[in-house]
Amino acid sequence: MTAESKPGLWVCLSPALLPLYDIGHCAVVIIDVLRATSTIATALHHGASRVIPVASVEACIRIGASLQAITAGERDGIIAPGLQQGNSPFEYPPEFIRGKTLVLTTTNGTRLLHMASGAAEILTGSFPNLSSVCTYLQERQLPVVLACAGWKDRINLEDTLFAGAVVHRLKNAFQVDCDAALMAESLYRQAEQDLFAAIRNATHFHRLARFGLEKDIRYCLTADVAPALPLLQGEALVDHQRAPA
Amino acid sequence: MTAESKPGLWVCLSPALLPLYDIGHCAVVIIDVLRATSTIATALHHGASRVIPVASVEACIRIGASLQAITAGERDGIIAPGLQQGNSPFEYPPEFIRGKTLVLTTTNGTRLLHMASGAAEILTGSFPNLSSVCTYLQERQLPVVLACAGWKDRINLEDTLFAGAVVHRLKNAFQVDCDAALMAESLYRQAEQDLFAAIRNATHFHRLARFGLEKDIRYCLTADVAPALPLLQGEALVDHQRAPA
Repeated sequence: MTAESKPGLWVCLSPALLPLYDIGHCAVVIIDVLRATSTIATALHHGASRVIPVASVEACIRIGASLQAITAGERDGIIAPGLQQGNSPFEYPPEFIRGKTLVLTTTNGTRLLHMASGAAEILTGSFPNLSSVCTYLQERQLPVVLACAGWKDRINLEDTLFAGAVVHRLKNAFQVDCDAALMAESLYRQAEQDLFAAIRNATHFHRLARFGLEKDIRYCLTADVAPALPLLQGEALVDHQRAPA
Repeated sequence: MTAESKPGLWVCLSPALLPLYDIGHCAVVIIDVLRATSTIATALHHGASRVIPVASVEACIRIGASLQAITAGERDGIIAPGLQQGNSPFEYPPEFIRGKTLVLTTTNGTRLLHMASGAAEILTGSFPNLSSVCTYLQERQLPVVLACAGWKDRINLEDTLFAGAVVHRLKNAFQVDCDAALMAESLYRQAEQDLFAAIRNATHFHRLARFGLEKDIRYCLTADVAPALPLLQGEALVDHQRAPA
């Protein structure tokens, strides 16, 4: 395959930059490593029938009630008033989540997911489903935008490192003409032997570590422990591997 | 000096992200390594009395005529119609530029400079004046935003590397609570032994190399060959080292 015939691959390091990319013909991967997209992969891998991402606590309560679903979301590190569960992937073991609908609101990831609504396809990725995402993208052969949720539009390290891991695996099958992708890959290569050590310096680490979430962080940085492929169908993320479109 | 009493240091990797930073009390360093801020440092170091950055070719022509100044700017790699000079630092040797006013329009750097107009101070930086910028910032003790011009709001490698070089020198004197700053520094540390080799993979390199500008690129990546300190006073950048405020 020549370079010209390969689909493009871009990394968008902040939601505020997403309008720069022509996503209409792209698969957009939403990345919110700590912890939304790690938890989504985990809930689906453990048998949730679907995950519905919503922007506000109010929408979460309303939709959760109408669907008799589990509602989840945190604000400032605690379960938001009116919701049942938090954002930790450890809250969603198979015996709890199998066959259920999860309605999830998060600060940054959900907003970005809604911003990407014009994309040809939307999926979510994090280290727990790294290989599933890469395999799917390589087979699908659409142009790809790896869209990092960041923190309130600021760039963060953990989402960048995951984007870099995907670039590293896909760069031979895609045309990468994007400095942000080169940078993300370099940072990943530098950190891959010990992602947790790399993240210890990041701003989000300190926010979460305050809440005693080091175990969550280690899990969210572990490759392929929840190999689901969350693909947006209508308003819900479903595991494409379990129920192919 | 305790961490709490140190001024903050942030890296803003795209003009589209500048609104996230509260620049009113900050020194903002405008970074457009290839080639605007390299050329500005060079013109001032070689004796230009001032450099007036303007947004459009039309403004460049009008202001240049009213001040009997040298007009300069390129569009798509060639001198824009109606202007006298291009963007290469090699066009501004002392015998040409000493005592003159240069009115300069560039695609990305000038726009960012105008976006930053609410800052407490605005200066410009690139490798040719790296040490001058760092020394000034360390003495000035204002909070700092290193603002990369990028390319049409996309992040680029060369501006990120310069921001990383500044972070590397200043991180002990400032409070760095910014993942973009950590990332820029890591990328700089990885590349510092051979910046030119690192830049060969960048998107902008190919744009400029098409125009035969490898010599320009090497110069723009060379530290301290034009140790001016371009500081915005009114509408013009002047060399603060030559004419302290």
